[in-house]
Amino acid sequence: MSGHIHGHHSHDEAPRRPIRAAVVTLSDKASAGLRADASGPMLVELLRGMGAEVGEAVVIPDDQPRIEETLAALADSGTVDLILTTGGTGLAPRDRTPEATIAVADRPAPGFAEAMRAASLEVTPRAMLSRAVAAVRKSTLIINMPGSPKACREHFAVIAPVLDHAVETLRGESYECATEAQPV
Amino acid sequence: MSGHIHGHHSHDEAPRRPIRAAVVTLSDKASAGLRADASGPMLVELLRGMGAEVGEAVVIPDDQPRIEETLAALADSGTVDLILTTGGTGLAPRDRTPEATIAVADRPAPGFAEAMRAASLEVTPRAMLSRAVAAVRKSTLIINMPGSPKACREHFAVIAPVLDHAVETLRGESYECATEAQPV
Amino acid sequence: MSGHIHGHHSHDEAPRRPIRAAVVTLSDKASAGLRADASGPMLVELLRGMGAEVGEAVVIPDDQPRIEETLAALADSGTVDLILTTGGTGLAPRDRTPEATIAVADRPAPGFAEAMRAASLEVTPRAMLSRAVAAVRKSTLIINMPGSPKACREHFAVIAPVLDHAVETLRGESYECATEAQPV
Repeated sequence: MSGHIHGHHSHDEAPRRPIRAAVVTLSDKASAGLRADASGPMLVELLRGMGAEVGEAVVIPDDQPRIEETLAALADSGTVDLILTTGGTGLAPRDRTPEATIAVADRPAPGFAEAMRAASLEVTPRAMLSRAVAAVRKSTLIINMPGSPKACREHFAVIAPVLDHAVETLRGESYECATEAQPV
Repeated sequence: MSGHIHGHHSHDEAPRRPIRAAVVTLSDKASAGLRADASGPMLVELLRGMGAEVGEAVVIPDDQPRIEETLAALADSGTVDLILTTGGTGLAPRDRTPEATIAVADRPAPGFAEAMRAASLEVTPRAMLSRAVAAVRKSTLIINMPGSPKACREHFAVIAPVLDHAVETLRGESYECATEAQPV
Repeated sequence: MSGHIHGHHSHDEAPRRPIRAAVVTLSDKASAGLRADASGPMLVELLRGMGAEVGEAVVIPDDQPRIEETLAALADSGTVDLILTTGGTGLAPRDRTPEATIAVADRPAPGFAEAMRAASLEVTPRAMLSRAVAAVRKSTLIINMPGSPKACREHFAVIAPVLDHAVETLRGESYECATEAQPV
């Protein structure tokens, strides 16, 4: 993407350490065993396909305190760079994933959700119903993904190109680049 | 839009119960009788044109506590699925509609305002001056619309295609769909 | 842009009083003299090029309380219509410009940052990493710009067409226009 010479490494290389990711599925029915969780395993596969290490994939109900605890524990472990959630971002009465994400966040990162909604709007006007957010807690990036497997796959394609760089920056590995040569 | 078989009803059908809507015009001048309210009646007409029942259309000044009380009372009545506000979303000193909306909201729904601003940006760069938000209080969706009749009509066209589904989902009527087959 | 007759003045004219602007560069290294600040002077030049008066251009470290104090003091002086910040909007550990901006804000103005990110996304997917926000404190508009000079120039081109009107509206000079004839 760039002909710049960087102090640390080329942006065309993978980061020196792979992304350490976790996937959290929010679904009352899946957590009760009443339905299979298709989107969580798909996100794990997509993450591994781009070289990430996925240490945890959990399924929990749409319970805001429980979601908050889970996200905070993963972020505070110091071993997770990226958490993708799936489910609970719509207008249904029990959908509380964005609220839980905001509650545990230190710093909002609105660009991820804006970009996913904008891309999805080109497919369907229902994209505007998504209440997904993204945010940072400590050095962990948390991104809300949709609940449906099809939408998960489409939305993942939007964020995948920047995840390596996002994690490097969060780790402080590309601070120079971020400040001097990057668009943000 | 879909060939899926849904548990409840086709998304091509109208919802079983019509949307129950209210329109709230925010304008110091209109509320004082110094100017006619053109946008409020237009929104009522547009809502009725899509089959909604519009029970209330009120005109109040740009007073944040007053706006909050009005929005909260409508939402808490249990008889209003959708509130459209018009006016008070710009940068003028008295514009406080988004602040009042956020103050009474349980759950933000940023996709509506993002989609309206993105569509409006294709018409005029001034679209970025809009501070409109959308949010849910209990089971009522509140969406801030612009103040001018022309812009109201344009922005309504952006959200109209998803209002039936949004209200069904808020009511819990399409929870299955939202979770399994929809993009959010 | 319009054939309307306005009560105050044509929107094709410059505002009666020029925009009074300030530029705040957030950079640990530039504030310590370890690196030259290229983006701050560029923003000053771009603002003057559109007729603005730039009274202050300061360089401070990425320290949230310090940023908050600086933004609040400039806004509360009553002599600054517009503050452009540069730097500190990414995911790096010390990036806190959006948090400082939100902390001192009375009213969020999300449309500016959405429009800049959307335009930048057409150039690079890394645009979604920007956490920039815009907001109003009293009658001062604060807009977070990127850290890199190239991105600053590109993002400035997005907001420049609406800055005169934004400042007029904040001053209450175009209240009529904003309410009756404008898209917001």
